[in-house]
Amino acid sequence: MVDTRFSVSVQIMITLAYHSDEMMNSEALSKVFKTNPTFIRKLVSNLVEAQLVDSFRGKNGGIKIARSPSEISLKDIYVASTEKKTLVSAHKKPTIKACPVSCSMDKIFCDIVDGIETSTKSYLSKKYLSDLLKKISAN
Amino acid sequence: MVDTRFSVSVQIMITLAYHSDEMMNSEALSKVFKTNPTFIRKLVSNLVEAQLVDSFRGKNGGIKIARSPSEISLKDIYVASTEKKTLVSAHKKPTIKACPVSCSMDKIFCDIVDGIETSTKSYLSKKYLSDLLKKISAN
Repeated sequence: MVDTRFSVSVQIMITLAYHSDEMMNSEALSKVFKTNPTFIRKLVSNLVEAQLVDSFRGKNGGIKIARSPSEISLKDIYVASTEKKTLVSAHKKPTIKACPVSCSMDKIFCDIVDGIETSTKSYLSKKYLSDLLKKISAN
Repeated sequence: MVDTRFSVSVQIMITLAYHSDEMMNSEALSKVFKTNPTFIRKLVSNLVEAQLVDSFRGKNGGIKIARSPSEISLKDIYVASTEKKTLVSAHKKPTIKACPVSCSMDKIFCDIVDGIETSTKSYLSKKYLSDLLKKISAN
């Protein structure tokens, strides 16, 4: 299942976009989220790996958003943050070989999970970080 | 977050559709799923409430599918089984009043969650239990 790492990653990206003229770091973000710095560092690391965030080393180092918010879709953030976890989970149970339903469930549910992921990613691919930023300015 | 109750409910519905000429009961289903009978009874109760399953009391009572599999969409099962839980979860944290991003996050993420739910339900509304049964017959 997808846990809160997607929503936290979205907020990290909005925060970096909103403060795009400043260098930030994971420790400062951890204070904003009031959460475990290790968790934030892991999420930031995933966003860096997906080339959505740039990381600079050294005394004056930190992190910055890597692209324009209009070039970063929520699908980009979703794919970077969920680490191939899916939105719905199938239950695990031993297959009963004499039961045709039981034998077919893995394949059937796999197709459903794929369908949900595809429709979700399609929706998220049309939403950009710049759309979210507009909602902040409007407040 | 949506847990395994959706996937288990799908399998319950397929099992009832596949054995539509038999009266079944939660205890028998629990053995198939090798899981807690209370959990299965709760899921069956939700499916009965949603009028997807009929429940008959008495010595020869039990449960049966209430409609034709071609009239039951996966959206029907999803709505009945997930009890208004959503596919993705927002992280909970105190709002920092001085921070415009923090103040806007609830609304922003609420819109994203709504969008994901809508696109998922749209996908599931086009898939019917009868489609899944065909995948069993094909094995």
